[in-house]
Amino acid sequence: MTRHVDIREVSLRDGLQIEAPIPLAAKLELLAAVAATGVREVEATAFVSPSKVPSMADAAELAARLHDYPDIEFSALVASPNGARRAVAAGLRSIEYVVSASDAFSEANVGRTSAEATDQIDQIVAIAHDGGVTVEVIVATAWDCPFEGPTPSRRVLDIAAAARDRGVDRFCVADTIGTTTPGRVSSLIAQLRPVIGDLPLGGHFHNTRGAGLASAYAAVGSGVSRLDASVGGLGGCPFAPGATGNIATEDLVYLLRDSGIHVDVDLRAAIAAAEVAKSVVGHDLPGALLHAGDRIRA
Amino acid sequence: MTRHVDIREVSLRDGLQIEAPIPLAAKLELLAAVAATGVREVEATAFVSPSKVPSMADAAELAARLHDYPDIEFSALVASPNGARRAVAAGLRSIEYVVSASDAFSEANVGRTSAEATDQIDQIVAIAHDGGVTVEVIVATAWDCPFEGPTPSRRVLDIAAAARDRGVDRFCVADTIGTTTPGRVSSLIAQLRPVIGDLPLGGHFHNTRGAGLASAYAAVGSGVSRLDASVGGLGGCPFAPGATGNIATEDLVYLLRDSGIHVDVDLRAAIAAAEVAKSVVGHDLPGALLHAGDRIRA
Repeated sequence: MTRHVDIREVSLRDGLQIEAPIPLAAKLELLAAVAATGVREVEATAFVSPSKVPSMADAAELAARLHDYPDIEFSALVASPNGARRAVAAGLRSIEYVVSASDAFSEANVGRTSAEATDQIDQIVAIAHDGGVTVEVIVATAWDCPFEGPTPSRRVLDIAAAARDRGVDRFCVADTIGTTTPGRVSSLIAQLRPVIGDLPLGGHFHNTRGAGLASAYAAVGSGVSRLDASVGGLGGCPFAPGATGNIATEDLVYLLRDSGIHVDVDLRAAIAAAEVAKSVVGHDLPGALLHAGDRIRA
Repeated sequence: MTRHVDIREVSLRDGLQIEAPIPLAAKLELLAAVAATGVREVEATAFVSPSKVPSMADAAELAARLHDYPDIEFSALVASPNGARRAVAAGLRSIEYVVSASDAFSEANVGRTSAEATDQIDQIVAIAHDGGVTVEVIVATAWDCPFEGPTPSRRVLDIAAAARDRGVDRFCVADTIGTTTPGRVSSLIAQLRPVIGDLPLGGHFHNTRGAGLASAYAAVGSGVSRLDASVGGLGGCPFAPGATGNIATEDLVYLLRDSGIHVDVDLRAAIAAAEVAKSVVGHDLPGALLHAGDRIRA
């Protein structure tokens, strides 16, 4: 069992992505609250099509404000070489390139097959490394696709082998639609390890069917030492059919620390940041501690 | 890892206990929906003080209706020898006797210390076994007490030894206030095993801080083969400070089955029963599948 887990805070990107666009000032307010938790890695934004994802249209403006937090490693999500160029030009030091393991999801999201998206890893790595920027490949729909059903693990392993061979710096598997469970998480991680070797491996889970934290803990039990989470569980309304919610940072911190695993994030500050997240989006969030509090005493 | 888990449906007792009393007809409607899930064990009611727990005042009337479901093993919770006598007289074939591991919680709930409650196991077993009724001892506040904080595991182990020595038929550990996490669950179960030997061991978890399903899965990983759950997560409003919610039956079934563990409960019928539970109490419930549905496709 891993005794230390690095949490990447994704509320500013994955959390806000499906929300109506909020002003840059509100994002900076959330960023300040997130920074106060002590988290070392923050996914700040995405350099993608502003017409497709209007909530991320201010990516460059937000990137220009990140130097206020020199102790945090900020990353941005990209879906193409062009996005990678924009991210590097905006001063990001770390980019995440998403490859969907299912063709249907890949086509729906970026208009390319999974193999075509995999082939672009070379270009992404060249653009990033030329600028001294690290690259993480994130496999979307690593367990299930909303259109194709269960994802054959061979597809994830093939993308992992390509990512390794093309010199990416980190690898991550994402349960994009919140359907996986601990048993399948442990199984896929066990198959991935011999493929990726020493490449740092992260996990990205959603709590849509209630199994997100159990899956995250199973990943840690399989040796994953990097987990994505979003304060308050920001990232889609869990109270609508098919909605997705990221696992809540504060709930993850509570669970890991109480189980004897070290994390850098302060619990009370994470709950406070979840309150800020709730305020900036203007609706309730699903995080459990946001409702129950962090105290043992009733 | 256990490959089969028996679920005990507790919505009718632990689920309804803190709700305003509902008519017997509404309970029978929920019971019919629960029975349709295929579950083999149902905690039907509690033989406790009607003035303290008005929602369970109809225990004998409800018990008289249970013969409609001959394939289900019904149990009732009791907190004293008098309650055990009432349960046996009402025709229950299985009783659960609760012993709190913390004195403060025990005093607040039943006006006796933990040791005094433990001493009564003898009497409870005699009353039950004389009537051919099985006895399960459930340890409340097995991990944390809302008044005293963390429960020393020695207290749980001592109650377990007493239960074993006095001939109880089953043993169960309960995270009464929903604060435990997978690491502490695995630790306590590992300590319990040599004490209870072959006595069937169950776990009862609440999702108050989001860790209920992760804790339940950790219990299964430690060899626990019996889990309590409540359709919809009925059992206190999670949207109020300090509230408690049982783990939702349908979310547990989804997680276990998707992880390759056999359960007897039908998933779609459990979601339907959660809808009935929501209807009879007249407010929303926290179960994830109740909101997301059981389908992979968006």
